[in-house]
Amino acid sequence: MGHYTLIKKDKDSRARLGKVATARGVIDTPAFMPVGTQATVKSLSPCEVAECGAQIILSNAYHLFLRPGMEVITRAGGLHKFMSWNKPVLTDSGGYQIFSLALLRKVSDQGVEFQSHIDGFKHFLTPEDVLGIQRDLGSDIIMPLDDVAHYPCERDFAEQAMKRTVMWAKRQRDAFLASEMPAKQQLFGIVQGATYTDLRKECAERMIEIGFEGYALGGLSVGEPKDVMYPMAEFTAALLPEDKPRYMMGVGLPEDLVECAGHGVDMFDCVAPTRYGRNGTAFTSTGRLAVRNAPSTFDFGPLDADCGCYTCRNFTRSYLRHLFNTNETLGLKLLSLHNVYFYLDLMRRLRQAIAEDRFAAFKKEFLTKYTSGA
Amino acid sequence: MGHYTLIKKDKDSRARLGKVATARGVIDTPAFMPVGTQATVKSLSPCEVAECGAQIILSNAYHLFLRPGMEVITRAGGLHKFMSWNKPVLTDSGGYQIFSLALLRKVSDQGVEFQSHIDGFKHFLTPEDVLGIQRDLGSDIIMPLDDVAHYPCERDFAEQAMKRTVMWAKRQRDAFLASEMPAKQQLFGIVQGATYTDLRKECAERMIEIGFEGYALGGLSVGEPKDVMYPMAEFTAALLPEDKPRYMMGVGLPEDLVECAGHGVDMFDCVAPTRYGRNGTAFTSTGRLAVRNAPSTFDFGPLDADCGCYTCRNFTRSYLRHLFNTNETLGLKLLSLHNVYFYLDLMRRLRQAIAEDRFAAFKKEFLTKYTSGA
Repeated sequence: MGHYTLIKKDKDSRARLGKVATARGVIDTPAFMPVGTQATVKSLSPCEVAECGAQIILSNAYHLFLRPGMEVITRAGGLHKFMSWNKPVLTDSGGYQIFSLALLRKVSDQGVEFQSHIDGFKHFLTPEDVLGIQRDLGSDIIMPLDDVAHYPCERDFAEQAMKRTVMWAKRQRDAFLASEMPAKQQLFGIVQGATYTDLRKECAERMIEIGFEGYALGGLSVGEPKDVMYPMAEFTAALLPEDKPRYMMGVGLPEDLVECAGHGVDMFDCVAPTRYGRNGTAFTSTGRLAVRNAPSTFDFGPLDADCGCYTCRNFTRSYLRHLFNTNETLGLKLLSLHNVYFYLDLMRRLRQAIAEDRFAAFKKEFLTKYTSGA
Repeated sequence: MGHYTLIKKDKDSRARLGKVATARGVIDTPAFMPVGTQATVKSLSPCEVAECGAQIILSNAYHLFLRPGMEVITRAGGLHKFMSWNKPVLTDSGGYQIFSLALLRKVSDQGVEFQSHIDGFKHFLTPEDVLGIQRDLGSDIIMPLDDVAHYPCERDFAEQAMKRTVMWAKRQRDAFLASEMPAKQQLFGIVQGATYTDLRKECAERMIEIGFEGYALGGLSVGEPKDVMYPMAEFTAALLPEDKPRYMMGVGLPEDLVECAGHGVDMFDCVAPTRYGRNGTAFTSTGRLAVRNAPSTFDFGPLDADCGCYTCRNFTRSYLRHLFNTNETLGLKLLSLHNVYFYLDLMRRLRQAIAEDRFAAFKKEFLTKYTSGA
């Protein structure tokens, strides 16, 4: 199918430089996807997201299905037109949200019944329905509905969820291939299996058998410690074919991106940049900064002296502290903008390091400074 | 002093085209000044405010004195640097806020004692103090502390407040001329007198005697009906010298700007564009639109087909409704942006109409369409 081009492998790690081609443009990998759950990357306009360097964003089928609903989005001409974003969009099925947000869910092999977390209204969706929703959204990359195991998770439950995930994946792949979607859309397979390496291995093999345009590492960053997550990412990524992109769902903090890119992961998404930004915390090259705190009062330097974003070029920590102290929404926008830029700039520098065969040095340098708290 | 240039008088009304020169740039009049009470035009970045066409913004000495406090702003290098806005700023003294927001205020000829509406801390400020605060902010146009009458207001109280306003104005003018401020800053006089024409007349005469770079119509739009406000604006504006700019404080809605520009007012400010925007109401050429309402659900047109702002060029009513329904802050930013643009574009068109000797036709056309609800 040839959507992924492997450009270069790092000499010291499994990190790799590549490109994912979609109908709406190319994504340089390793890539970070800002999250626009409700058809907006929170507090940022699409042109600001693009100016930060985003080549793709993530949205969420579950949320959009509930609000504004599919009739609005289809009549608008699809998600891209609806939100005025013309670059690629990857949509998550919302499997994770159904399991974490929705009320009174009942899962069977047939599908999932749940009550909306917004109005309590009852819905039943089959895997094919969830695929159809994403077809109608016009997603460039579709994630199939899966059965997500929580953490910690008993082996029996993890195995059952993994097997259901495989069965649903097959049904969704069949429906995908039977439709007119493959010309313009891509479908990824998701590897589940909780923290059990044999289940991960079995799931990866079954997904590869079915065959997808890319493969995702699901069920990570769901509460497990980093010394569980990192080895699991390393183990799972190594099971996946070299000629397809690997996407680690819902991960993570800057240090997670650097670590897991080193294990050969190509794509990441996380709400952290905008969520921390809304709460007044900036990611900087020397670690996290709570801008509301007293030391910012008379600090007339930028959030991050190394950063070239609009916020850092124009505003001081002192001013940003004032905006948060006075509950001015410009504050959360400027911090969200900085954080999204910080993530995307980190990925640019990380790709550059792989290109120049100095990923290990880059990782060490980044982590040393990032944990210095200077 | 020559800061104001009268370019052209309308042939059918008292509307006039002019320019106000300040140390930080020229303001085409009649002008609207977006309000940035707390050193931010709510939800908009300074570059967005400038892109909407703003040549000057208004801020508020009372609010800035309380938060972040003068030490922060002076150490930042002044208000412009603090908020990253390099065009002119007019600051209100905060007289109105002391009388409307502050707690337990006591006014004497000496000055005003009040408790902060934020932390209850007690402050005492003389008129000279308030002038000094605005000097330190680096305001391009300074409004003196005045004694604001409420509405409705007994004549005795209105007269006392007007006389104190004059006395304070004289003290502040003396302090202004004795300092090094006149080179770069301007001080306006404020005409008070509530709804009593003889008090307004006396106040105007006394202010003109003292002599200021411009004159303001104060104490209007404080609750009185429009059929009181408009005649009072007309009466007061006619008392003021032709070679100085006239600023109507805190006014108003679009129809007020058009009406009062016709009475020879040159400058306006109002929180309406951002306050209505935050609450989901857009100003459009056919009147106000509550975007949250059901008719927007499947309306894939812009807020205003006549508008060229970023919001109208990129987003539909349907999408904006979705943002408000899901409490996404992008919604209030996009509506605020549109509303500020709408106001500034209205002033551009109004100035053009005066330049082309068709103000009366413009006013009629605007008001007919604006009240059509189409």
